[in-house]
Amino acid sequence: MKIDGVAWRPIWAAEDGESVEIIDQTTLPFAFGTKRLTTMAEAAEAISVMRVRGAPLIGVTAAYGLAMALRDDPSDAAMMAAYGTLHATRPTAINLRWALDRISAAMADTAPEDRFTAAYALAGVMADEDVEINRRIGAHGLTLLREAAGQGGRVNVLTHCNAGWLATVDWGTATSPIYQAYDEGIDVHVWVDETRPRNQGAFLTAWELHQHGVSHSIITDNAGGHLMQHGEVDLCLVGTDRVTATGDVCNKIGTYLKALAAHDNDVPFYVCLPTPTIDWRVRDGIAEIPIENRSPDEVLCVDGVLSSGEIVRSRIASPGSNAANPAFDVTPARLVSGLITEQGIVDASEAGLAVLNRM
Amino acid sequence: MKIDGVAWRPIWAAEDGESVEIIDQTTLPFAFGTKRLTTMAEAAEAISVMRVRGAPLIGVTAAYGLAMALRDDPSDAAMMAAYGTLHATRPTAINLRWALDRISAAMADTAPEDRFTAAYALAGVMADEDVEINRRIGAHGLTLLREAAGQGGRVNVLTHCNAGWLATVDWGTATSPIYQAYDEGIDVHVWVDETRPRNQGAFLTAWELHQHGVSHSIITDNAGGHLMQHGEVDLCLVGTDRVTATGDVCNKIGTYLKALAAHDNDVPFYVCLPTPTIDWRVRDGIAEIPIENRSPDEVLCVDGVLSSGEIVRSRIASPGSNAANPAFDVTPARLVSGLITEQGIVDASEAGLAVLNRM
Repeated sequence: MKIDGVAWRPIWAAEDGESVEIIDQTTLPFAFGTKRLTTMAEAAEAISVMRVRGAPLIGVTAAYGLAMALRDDPSDAAMMAAYGTLHATRPTAINLRWALDRISAAMADTAPEDRFTAAYALAGVMADEDVEINRRIGAHGLTLLREAAGQGGRVNVLTHCNAGWLATVDWGTATSPIYQAYDEGIDVHVWVDETRPRNQGAFLTAWELHQHGVSHSIITDNAGGHLMQHGEVDLCLVGTDRVTATGDVCNKIGTYLKALAAHDNDVPFYVCLPTPTIDWRVRDGIAEIPIENRSPDEVLCVDGVLSSGEIVRSRIASPGSNAANPAFDVTPARLVSGLITEQGIVDASEAGLAVLNRM
Repeated sequence: MKIDGVAWRPIWAAEDGESVEIIDQTTLPFAFGTKRLTTMAEAAEAISVMRVRGAPLIGVTAAYGLAMALRDDPSDAAMMAAYGTLHATRPTAINLRWALDRISAAMADTAPEDRFTAAYALAGVMADEDVEINRRIGAHGLTLLREAAGQGGRVNVLTHCNAGWLATVDWGTATSPIYQAYDEGIDVHVWVDETRPRNQGAFLTAWELHQHGVSHSIITDNAGGHLMQHGEVDLCLVGTDRVTATGDVCNKIGTYLKALAAHDNDVPFYVCLPTPTIDWRVRDGIAEIPIENRSPDEVLCVDGVLSSGEIVRSRIASPGSNAANPAFDVTPARLVSGLITEQGIVDASEAGLAVLNRM
């Protein structure tokens, strides 16, 4: 999508043909910068500290990371070590593993001296495929927004976290229907959950929507239930890090609470995902998906900008207290109205998922 | 309760016998200070900018404010004007009105020259009554914590916002059972919702609990549902600004989402309140209670402390974006396990409330 009228992606192959460049999302929305990743270790670090985030973008970054590892050492042993390092960066993200598996599988019949070139090219193909997948997710989701708009009315969409183009290679997942609705003239307004503790909604989703010109309001994560009670939300659209074979949805912490409120108020709650996000091996999301516990400092402290323009980290908690910080939760399939995939909209159930081609 | 081992209240009659002193809660938890309120206008300002907050404490502060108005002009006209000014500071708080009505009613048969002395004394009586009410709320709620503890086990309580002693004249409402459980040796641990946008949980509840020595962890408002799914919450205890005649509960924005999660996971969800918090004239909380929309800046900016000790306000949202900020929501009675009042624990229903003596 566009920044100041210019088309960007959050990751692209560097001109040197052996490294990769990214938008460094850790400084957004207060400063815009890019960073070149030249080694597997730098790619792992970028994922780990969330210079790149969002399941699809993590997958492509890991693919480039594995390619760069093969550039430096094309042996099977080095590939397996790099696989382990990259996979450990964000254990919750299923298509991180999917991306690593895809590169690894392609290397099986590739001679060591050809591996870097093949892996690097495949990472680029995967990036382009992600763009097309997200465009299709948006086209399917657009039908829901058209219905909600009826004869030219306003459509209020609530979203949580950032499942926007910054979390993918373009379009985003949850934002793709929104951008496509906006582009065809639907009067769409987005309630943007700020998404504590890392504020990806207030920082990234709001920034994206503002850059593209889409009407939106930031709200606290506490506010969505009240808005739904009062008819101010027509549709919830969120992304996901992992969907189980039964349709349970693992996504940013707090998603479950919004799904409960949507269910209680008959507001449709849809999850947007590329089908590689489905983990066919897992059935019970709550019991089986390990949830990443991140640093308490993410809760206790926050990055913000002073009126002087200086970016500071301040503590926003009582000095004597500590915090707990589970980063994801699982929304049971029974609370999900449907899954919007590149192959179409399906029920969040084993039967619904059965119609999909497995990738 | 205690600060550094010394007993404090958040409001007390000043030694001059004609003004009132408060703990200025706007600087907590980073700095501790008190402020003398010498006029009705200063009392109104203290309520409006939340130097005092919490329904019971607002009521007592307004009572002192009305007394000080009568000190300066004991006429009926002046009293009515002061009533209007004080009532307008926080329209959602029902026992603000209750407190003003109680002072006003007592003035009806009081000669103008005696009004200040009578009103000032009555405000002090109301303060002492609040302490006793909250002690009783805690004694009733304590039975639930004893049951949850069983034979010496840990009890995990989740609370939202600050319904602590800082929100009352002592003990707090939702915290009163917790303090009493702690004092009798129950192993109680509190999950403290940070409570965006004003962070009363991370700022005030955490500060209170730390001062008293109660084990606790700050969590984002997004985290409670996940914790309940995994059996890490035995009981939710929250306060309220207004309860309807049918048991609907108006409280800090986000309370509704926690009640939904508690209901979905069979976690008991109790609301602690003094009975003056019941608004017998209102039946349908969602349809009838006006919800205060506060400044977008509360969402977009946050107060925090730098590692240098300097307190700063920083912006934590994308520069081009605005916010919406509904401050309260309504939890339907069907999601509330019970109401813990000074008169006992009752069902959140018209029938349950019918057993209470009306104050």
